[in-house]
Amino acid sequence: MGTKSDLIALDALTLRDGLATGAISAIDLTDACLDRIAERDEAVRAWAWIDPEFARDQARRLDTYRKSGRPIGPLHGMPVGLKDIIDTAGIPTENGCPIDKGRVPVEDAFVVGRLKQAGAVILGKTVTTELAFMQAGETRNPHDPAHTPGGSSSGSAAAVADGQVPLAIGTQTGGSVIRPASFCGVTGFKASFGAIPRRGVLMQSPTLDTLGVFARTPLDAALIADTLFGFDPADKATAPRPAPHLLEVARNEPPITPTFALIKPPGWKDADPQLHAAFAELAGALGDQVFEAELPSAFDQAAEVRARINFAEMARYYYRYARDGMDRLGPRTREALETGAGIVARDYLAALDWPDVLYAGLEEVLERCDAILCPAAPGPATEGLEFTGDSIFNGVWTLLGTPAVTIPAFTAENGLPMGLQLVGARGQDARLLRNAHWFTRWLDEAGA
Amino acid sequence: MGTKSDLIALDALTLRDGLATGAISAIDLTDACLDRIAERDEAVRAWAWIDPEFARDQARRLDTYRKSGRPIGPLHGMPVGLKDIIDTAGIPTENGCPIDKGRVPVEDAFVVGRLKQAGAVILGKTVTTELAFMQAGETRNPHDPAHTPGGSSSGSAAAVADGQVPLAIGTQTGGSVIRPASFCGVTGFKASFGAIPRRGVLMQSPTLDTLGVFARTPLDAALIADTLFGFDPADKATAPRPAPHLLEVARNEPPITPTFALIKPPGWKDADPQLHAAFAELAGALGDQVFEAELPSAFDQAAEVRARINFAEMARYYYRYARDGMDRLGPRTREALETGAGIVARDYLAALDWPDVLYAGLEEVLERCDAILCPAAPGPATEGLEFTGDSIFNGVWTLLGTPAVTIPAFTAENGLPMGLQLVGARGQDARLLRNAHWFTRWLDEAGA
Repeated sequence: MGTKSDLIALDALTLRDGLATGAISAIDLTDACLDRIAERDEAVRAWAWIDPEFARDQARRLDTYRKSGRPIGPLHGMPVGLKDIIDTAGIPTENGCPIDKGRVPVEDAFVVGRLKQAGAVILGKTVTTELAFMQAGETRNPHDPAHTPGGSSSGSAAAVADGQVPLAIGTQTGGSVIRPASFCGVTGFKASFGAIPRRGVLMQSPTLDTLGVFARTPLDAALIADTLFGFDPADKATAPRPAPHLLEVARNEPPITPTFALIKPPGWKDADPQLHAAFAELAGALGDQVFEAELPSAFDQAAEVRARINFAEMARYYYRYARDGMDRLGPRTREALETGAGIVARDYLAALDWPDVLYAGLEEVLERCDAILCPAAPGPATEGLEFTGDSIFNGVWTLLGTPAVTIPAFTAENGLPMGLQLVGARGQDARLLRNAHWFTRWLDEAGA
Repeated sequence: MGTKSDLIALDALTLRDGLATGAISAIDLTDACLDRIAERDEAVRAWAWIDPEFARDQARRLDTYRKSGRPIGPLHGMPVGLKDIIDTAGIPTENGCPIDKGRVPVEDAFVVGRLKQAGAVILGKTVTTELAFMQAGETRNPHDPAHTPGGSSSGSAAAVADGQVPLAIGTQTGGSVIRPASFCGVTGFKASFGAIPRRGVLMQSPTLDTLGVFARTPLDAALIADTLFGFDPADKATAPRPAPHLLEVARNEPPITPTFALIKPPGWKDADPQLHAAFAELAGALGDQVFEAELPSAFDQAAEVRARINFAEMARYYYRYARDGMDRLGPRTREALETGAGIVARDYLAALDWPDVLYAGLEEVLERCDAILCPAAPGPATEGLEFTGDSIFNGVWTLLGTPAVTIPAFTAENGLPMGLQLVGARGQDARLLRNAHWFTRWLDEAGA
């Protein structure tokens, strides 16, 4: 399979096949990732914690295990990056926050347990914005270090985009998976609300917090997400359900050629004109496979409603940070905590009714299409590192709990990527990934 | 079975047997109830809506049906009273509130559908306090019209106590089943939170609102509750579970002689000295079948926490009443709505963590006993009609979601009844009713 450094160019599915047969060893792949990080870390700064020997130890053990001939998991030997709000037993998890400096959890998060069972190599912890909100971390956009990588899952997006790790995990409360994936030019997949248990993940806003993954392709996203979906009694948003078989479904040909609903959501008019042009071109190329659909006017309230829920719950679940160290928090975090502390319960409870009301208004559109198309962000990654970007095109889907995927479909004049977001019906994650996979192939063919 | 007027003295199980064999006709039983109401309504005023012909029509139809030999339901021909916050299709449901004067629902509440399936006669709607809060309705205590019947399920408790109907349904958000049952001298049973679906019942505080029943005996309570337990996707507190077989379990002898934990909950010291004396005597009579247990000190917070949740949710779910007719509401309702509107989301959300924390502290006690014993109210029904009484001994169990039963165990010097409350573990409603049934027999034998 060529030299070590070639490995970092391969997608996770190809790596998985090589790891399973022994054509690729876990230690070679881990070393390839570590070499890439050593070379690029000063420029990209995607990692909050990494220890090469810790990673290599796991890889060597997994190689030995594989040689014993015993059955191996679906991610055997695969390096994975974890956003630093996901608890890892014995490994620092500092939540991007000075107050949590030196914090080392005793237990793994649910998803970390699942990854270990699947045979993954925990490569390290990736940079998050402060408490997964909007105070930027150190990470830069790998395409241009003067630009933000997006947030809050900044390091996970940048590390995958830069070939430092084939797969990474992040979370989205506003737009923290889809936006950084769009800015960094990788596939981002935010699962349906409640699909992936959140035990051991920093709780910001339990009504909204959702796990997601970063990968090179929708099939790679399906590969890792298959190991994460499940039921955990500790997370009341989850429920016992059959395994989703995301990869198996996603790699199938759709039964009929898919039809897409193009949506221009609130915020569309203020988006980058390059994005308007890209969508016009895309619609022309898709021809009668796409129709334009309008969202009910109630969707104009979605951003305010989402923020109200987010800030009220943040004031509750980050109370100890506000109480013990408000002065050590960044101004964006402080402001949100102060806003949240002023929201009255009556208004908060009223906001909780909105997701189902809005979703009822969306069902008419969802019934007529295989997936919704819309922008993943208002344009390419914004210049500067202070502002991680606007989540206007993401928050509504987080609020509604629908699955969302972004694929790097467009390129701005400055060379930065822009994502195309696909949105599906709640719980139809497998179908959405299948349509996203279809779309990547269609883009390849259209571009060829 | 004697004359019609004898029927009102019989318990529901005896009536059920007579109705099933045809020894008692639905119309005779319904007429007996209506006669009793005609005689006593001016003194007790338990009914918000009643139409003798409406009741008789149902009874006649049920008698005809039974004679056809087709299978009949477990409450075939049994008159039932419904608190007037429980929606009945085509029948006024005015929530004890002038703003809802003339309101006639289009659909039956879940429990009304279940009662109809079981063959019950919907006798009428019973008086509730205003919006099931603390502004008293017109009902008087049937033992002494100068005393409150308790609230908020005032009419249901008084009607059963006065022999006007064998069974009735109520709800409890603070102490609205157990307290009026205690004051009126009947059996009250508040089910485990989430056991009985609340669809079609006025929503005051979805974290607390719980359905319950009034009956002559714990077995009668089990008979009607068996028809009400279930799963309704519209009520997220409910879950699919096997049928509880409450009556079948409750009428069994406990496998071993039960042991009780006597608890003196917050408020004990301020309770009526007659109650202190009664409990001391009871403990002596039970001997080594009872031990005294202390609640963790966190229980001192329970009343405040419960009120915070109640008022915050009330401000949200009664918002339309506050907006459209604050001036038409009673002062107690207005005050609660104003308090609720000032509670911030952060404090409300913090309160939601308490029930599980407190329950964890209770489990050590629950593991050592078959049921907890404690007072149902701080004394006999208070004099006057304005104040429906203190729910200090009830709210904690509503907050925790444990099932609770009160049985009329004691009599005050003024002749008014005082209830003994039995509390069980969450979801163990059948076992609790079995222990309550055991207790009524033990009291009969001890008193004989």
